Amino acid sequence: MNLQLAKPDEIRKQIRNGALDIPTSGMCKSYVQANVVILPSKYAYDFLKFCFRNPKTCPLLDVSEIGSTSFSKYGKDADIRTDVGKYRLYKNGKLVDSYSDIKALYTDDMVSFLIGCSFTFEHALLEAGIPIRHIEENHNVPMYITNIPASPSGVFTGNITVSMRPMTMAQAIKATEITSNFKEVHGTPIHIGNPSEIGISDLNTPDYGEKVTIKENEVPVFWGCGVTPQSVALDAKPELMMTHAPGYMFITDVRDSEMGS
Amino acid sequence: MNLQLAKPDEIRKQIRNGALDIPTSGMCKSYVQANVVILPSKYAYDFLKFCFRNPKTCPLLDVSEIGSTSFSKYGKDADIRTDVGKYRLYKNGKLVDSYSDIKALYTDDMVSFLIGCSFTFEHALLEAGIPIRHIEENHNVPMYITNIPASPSGVFTGNITVSMRPMTMAQAIKATEITSNFKEVHGTPIHIGNPSEIGISDLNTPDYGEKVTIKENEVPVFWGCGVTPQSVALDAKPELMMTHAPGYMFITDVRDSEMGS
Repeated sequence: MNLQLAKPDEIRKQIRNGALDIPTSGMCKSYVQANVVILPSKYAYDFLKFCFRNPKTCPLLDVSEIGSTSFSKYGKDADIRTDVGKYRLYKNGKLVDSYSDIKALYTDDMVSFLIGCSFTFEHALLEAGIPIRHIEENHNVPMYITNIPASPSGVFTGNITVSMRPMTMAQAIKATEITSNFKEVHGTPIHIGNPSEIGISDLNTPDYGEKVTIKENEVPVFWGCGVTPQSVALDAKPELMMTHAPGYMFITDVRDSEMGS
Repeated sequence: MNLQLAKPDEIRKQIRNGALDIPTSGMCKSYVQANVVILPSKYAYDFLKFCFRNPKTCPLLDVSEIGSTSFSKYGKDADIRTDVGKYRLYKNGKLVDSYSDIKALYTDDMVSFLIGCSFTFEHALLEAGIPIRHIEENHNVPMYITNIPASPSGVFTGNITVSMRPMTMAQAIKATEITSNFKEVHGTPIHIGNPSEIGISDLNTPDYGEKVTIKENEVPVFWGCGVTPQSVALDAKPELMMTHAPGYMFITDVRDSEMGS
């Protein structure tokens, strides 16, 4: 099976059957991959409202009906209980355990959210000849907690997290133009240049991911990061929350080119 | 008081004090006016999800916290119980009465939704030299129920309603280009041309509003209409729902030019 050329439902079936349990980077080329947040229904309105109010950090792709395990647009035949390779379970804001499926945990009261991830716009940047340093250096993108508060919604409050990609200012302008077409996956940068302006004291010590090389003629470019909704949700300390494990994304039925339609 | 040049908070204060009880068309030039839907909190998640899934007919501008009477972005100092000139109360899907305020009806369990209206993009079309026939003929825009189902969400299901403006095909193309920049107020047309393709049998008998003259060289251009969320919500027969009365919009603190920022 060619993982890069496979269709989303084929890959999801392999994952569901336990035949595939590796990170999804590079799978199903040109199909949108998504971050996953699963919460009890009493948090559904406030979390959906949080996504609506914070589109750059929490770009919502799809949401389930209460108790449903599939998605009307991004995964009609999916089963969110089994179609992610690795899940994390949090209780009262603390990581408790990881699971290869959550059939025993997903009740009729659960609601699932699919949130855009940066894979999509990185692909477009690369095609425009803009370098992605963490891909060149073969590790995770560096992420930083800023001093910029997210727009609060009910119990969900906290500062936003950004990812950083260094490039020349000319490339940063081009990247801003390109990502203005990708509003469902973080859109345009939140900041370009001086990190201290958004409360980041040292680019060499990211809060998540790994540091990257910044060349002399480059500026750091900061995009809203999909870690924000997870970190904010964990600060809210819901009694129960499930997410995908980092790198083990949900592969959707929607192509990059269909987004926004 | 010059109603056209007044600031939104001044107008809202007049309405709140009962000193102003006429339709809001033309008031606070360049500020966004909004449709209002108020529901008990048990419908909040499904209705917010309905808006998310149907951005062309139900473009959400802002939502309140449960029980809150103001809006974090579109009306920080507003009071949704008093700042609309005329409200309608529906019970189990039936219009019961109209009120000049809803202080006695708005409980801690209510949630308010502000939904974009076409005033904003009509202004932009006029500025581009595109005629708006119902304004020329000085009556309401004609609206039609289509055979296109809205994306359902929980109890909220039904066909979408469209508004229609006749123009030449060249103007229709220009209008499509212009409204692509107004995603918060219905965005691009849903259909151009043959009405029977979307289930409309006779343009001379609109379901709401009044018919307009269509000239020989013109095509009908159909946009998603803000009546959709109200009609769908009424089909869902919630035990209680409140809305603005037609023409008596909520005047927001956001300028047309700030939308989407």
